[in-house]
Amino acid sequence: MEKSALQKERAAYKPKLPKALQGAVKVVEGAPTQSVDNQEEIKKLFPNTYGMPLVEFVTAENALQKEMNVGVILSGGQAPGGHNVISGLFDEIKKLNPNNRLYGFLMGPSGLVDHKYIEITEELIADYRNTGGFDLIGSGRTKLEKVEQFEKGLEVIRELNIKAVVIIGGDDSNTNACVLAEYYAAKNYGVQVIGCPKTIDGDLKNEQIETSFGFDTATKTYSEVIGNIERDCNSARKYWHFIKLMGRSASHIALECALQTQPNICLISEEIEAKDLTLNDIVEQIASTVAYRASQGNNFGVVLIPEGLIEFIPAIGRLIQELNDLLAAHGQDYKDLDKDAQREYILSHLSEANKATFETLPEGVARQLSLDRDPHGNVQVSLIETEKLISEMVGAKLDQWAKEGKYNGKFSALHHFFGYEGRCAAPSNFDADYCYALGASAAQLIANGKTGYMAIVKNTTAGTEEWKAGGVPITMMMNMEKRNGEMKPVIRKALVDLNGKPFKAFAAQRDQWAKETCYVYPGPIQYWGPASVCDLPTKTLALEQE
Amino acid sequence: MEKSALQKERAAYKPKLPKALQGAVKVVEGAPTQSVDNQEEIKKLFPNTYGMPLVEFVTAENALQKEMNVGVILSGGQAPGGHNVISGLFDEIKKLNPNNRLYGFLMGPSGLVDHKYIEITEELIADYRNTGGFDLIGSGRTKLEKVEQFEKGLEVIRELNIKAVVIIGGDDSNTNACVLAEYYAAKNYGVQVIGCPKTIDGDLKNEQIETSFGFDTATKTYSEVIGNIERDCNSARKYWHFIKLMGRSASHIALECALQTQPNICLISEEIEAKDLTLNDIVEQIASTVAYRASQGNNFGVVLIPEGLIEFIPAIGRLIQELNDLLAAHGQDYKDLDKDAQREYILSHLSEANKATFETLPEGVARQLSLDRDPHGNVQVSLIETEKLISEMVGAKLDQWAKEGKYNGKFSALHHFFGYEGRCAAPSNFDADYCYALGASAAQLIANGKTGYMAIVKNTTAGTEEWKAGGVPITMMMNMEKRNGEMKPVIRKALVDLNGKPFKAFAAQRDQWAKETCYVYPGPIQYWGPASVCDLPTKTLALEQE
Repeated sequence: MEKSALQKERAAYKPKLPKALQGAVKVVEGAPTQSVDNQEEIKKLFPNTYGMPLVEFVTAENALQKEMNVGVILSGGQAPGGHNVISGLFDEIKKLNPNNRLYGFLMGPSGLVDHKYIEITEELIADYRNTGGFDLIGSGRTKLEKVEQFEKGLEVIRELNIKAVVIIGGDDSNTNACVLAEYYAAKNYGVQVIGCPKTIDGDLKNEQIETSFGFDTATKTYSEVIGNIERDCNSARKYWHFIKLMGRSASHIALECALQTQPNICLISEEIEAKDLTLNDIVEQIASTVAYRASQGNNFGVVLIPEGLIEFIPAIGRLIQELNDLLAAHGQDYKDLDKDAQREYILSHLSEANKATFETLPEGVARQLSLDRDPHGNVQVSLIETEKLISEMVGAKLDQWAKEGKYNGKFSALHHFFGYEGRCAAPSNFDADYCYALGASAAQLIANGKTGYMAIVKNTTAGTEEWKAGGVPITMMMNMEKRNGEMKPVIRKALVDLNGKPFKAFAAQRDQWAKETCYVYPGPIQYWGPASVCDLPTKTLALEQE
Repeated sequence: MEKSALQKERAAYKPKLPKALQGAVKVVEGAPTQSVDNQEEIKKLFPNTYGMPLVEFVTAENALQKEMNVGVILSGGQAPGGHNVISGLFDEIKKLNPNNRLYGFLMGPSGLVDHKYIEITEELIADYRNTGGFDLIGSGRTKLEKVEQFEKGLEVIRELNIKAVVIIGGDDSNTNACVLAEYYAAKNYGVQVIGCPKTIDGDLKNEQIETSFGFDTATKTYSEVIGNIERDCNSARKYWHFIKLMGRSASHIALECALQTQPNICLISEEIEAKDLTLNDIVEQIASTVAYRASQGNNFGVVLIPEGLIEFIPAIGRLIQELNDLLAAHGQDYKDLDKDAQREYILSHLSEANKATFETLPEGVARQLSLDRDPHGNVQVSLIETEKLISEMVGAKLDQWAKEGKYNGKFSALHHFFGYEGRCAAPSNFDADYCYALGASAAQLIANGKTGYMAIVKNTTAGTEEWKAGGVPITMMMNMEKRNGEMKPVIRKALVDLNGKPFKAFAAQRDQWAKETCYVYPGPIQYWGPASVCDLPTKTLALEQE
């Protein structure tokens, strides 16, 4: 494996651990817990893993010795630091007993079901310490939710004498980790399951989880390139850059990047939904800012757009819902129609309100909504180039205003989508340390006999030494929600809180950012150098924890 | 101006100067020089600035004292380090005499002609030291080539008592700097003109100029995000990423990024032209690699594509040429036709060979070539999304091969274009030092009475102390080339040399990179930390100078 100079030097970095995890460790347990809502239903669904206490690790006098093999799974989209969770887990189980073995299941949860795995050795892991990516064992999106899967997994668990499985994933994967933990507990199989909070989206967060890993590195990487584009924008002074940012369900990434880079405009899906704005409202808001800046001689700007925006616009959401139902009911006969006939068909079948919305959409987008379906027959929202859709509509609005004499300027738009650039970046010092501590915590939860827990690390805006490591019962974070028409126990997703400090900090400044040019240029993530640069938490975390 | 933590810390960085520029400086002159070609014509066009010697700065016993105000202009596209050229120039002229003043002409060469300028003071420049962007004074693309412009500029030069103008730009801007120098010299105006080699494209390079500034930082920034995408690609194992990289005329950026990141495929325009490859040849080559990797179970990969590719494909180049002529001759009558009629019109008027090429193009691209024209009536090649064009054609080829039983795999393509992300990145240590030294050299060239020179710094793969600073007569780098139908004196553009060491190093390894997965992850530019990371030259420079 050929390595860059940075890879070589960074391999030597020793992640810092919280004081409580540095030597011998013991567990302190709190009072029994309750789920955040629907306590009765959740308790009934998880009789063996409900109500367990929060636990925290503290320094012990004697080190625990424990024989245990462990399996680890990466689930879902990549996030910076995954390899450090595995390193932390590896080092900690070796500390508990040098004979302990760590097995990595390959390409996600399917590796457990299909018995695809490798043993992770010191030699192997050495190449992956402090690196980005999930390429050590790969990841996948298979959902662990069926008894056959659980039983199939058990075979390889028995074969490898595995005591516990650690599932590193987002809210859904951790919900499923808990279902698996409950199943194995109910069957008295003696196999523990522990989760780890991963997602760059930042939506796996609550009273117990301060932040999911990867959010820090990913948003810093996006902010680096957004800042570079802002500087270019402010130098050339002739383009409007429309930048879409990854994150389907929540706008945390866009909000964090906005706080770091101070663009002229940043759309927050949750606010748009709360205010019941239409696409036209959004377009008019942006066009007004473009027109204002043009009147000041500034025909340039930067707009941040969260990837999931389109589904949060209530009118579009309702339209997509009706289209899904309409087109699911009429399959092949609809497909055989030509383009114009399809449009006619849709217009004649939609309700009045949704028809009106459909008619306001640019042709290309209307076509994407009416034609491209995923295998389940649903509109493929992720294929919609929201950044182009919006800039095109802003351009049309400005043309109209120009004719009406309300606008006099030049509007040239450029488009970007940042996602894959940040999901596998080498972890920042924060994520490198945070993930390593999560891995070590997972090992200690296992050694202390816990199952159905997620490893957590708190007090993360203090120095690493002062971080508090422990575990939270996954059931504690659950409530019942409708998924595909059925009520399911799930970890509640954290959307942007419009009453939270990060959004309020943004809202307080955005008018100034729109009118003036207040760009901030965060630059690339630094691993060495002044702590003020290298160890800076995200603005979101700093504001939330202040 | 609100600043990021990195901006604050980086502001304190003191760029390192070559030993010869650290104290008192004097000039050593070499023998008279010749232009690289067409000596007679160039000499005739530049009687006052032709044949001057190369100069090098060495340590002197007594510091030169010199009263002189200077004007500075940023010309053309942004490149990291422009502000450091200005800082170096500022500090050096203040060293020559604290009363010297530096004026910045605004928004490029038009600032000189239109008398738009600011004085650059210590207080002002402090905010811009070691920063990316050209936002201190802005840049522009106005060409300085007419006597009226030169005379108009002279008015403000006189008004501000300016002794010399420094033009920071690419090959064309430096050619024009020399034309201006010659004009002022011929008129005995006593106004000097000095150039500085700027361009991220890397095509302003020759025996005298080892590298243009900005190339180091821009390619490192692109390589950072390409490496991140590679790691994502190698983790998810299900996408082919087609990444277009800025750089219209030369493929230096793509080549450097390939050497840094080892993608599966990197197209080099110069090679495609030299081998007279067709679009179909290129598509087949890529599809073969996709098919080979699929046969190994690897349905993923990364392809780098230089922005200027399409014009280098000889068949497409000839087609564009004929389309330009054809459509220039038939303006409005053609425009009034509908889509299908336009296509018919083109097909019936093109020569057989170009018609055949036109017919192989996907509909969208054919349409872009036949419809969208720039104000001069030319095809807007930059609007063609080459990365999508190629991936679409590769997909079609693979579908065909699948039907023929020659391919069995999955092909999902994602697209990226990186350009604006790197042009205004904060300069690497290399570019920060290099630019600062260029600025200081420019000041010394002025103080020593030189005009029609470009500031240069050589021996740049050694430590900064050992760098050699001086100046090269711009005429020395010139030859006559056809531009818009006319023979013009121009600085010869450096395309990728297919016999040069960087290309050869790439060519020697690319088959392995295509078949195996040899990705290297350079990570973000580091300003502090191990010298092996922070002070690494580009692979291009290291190979060329080894």
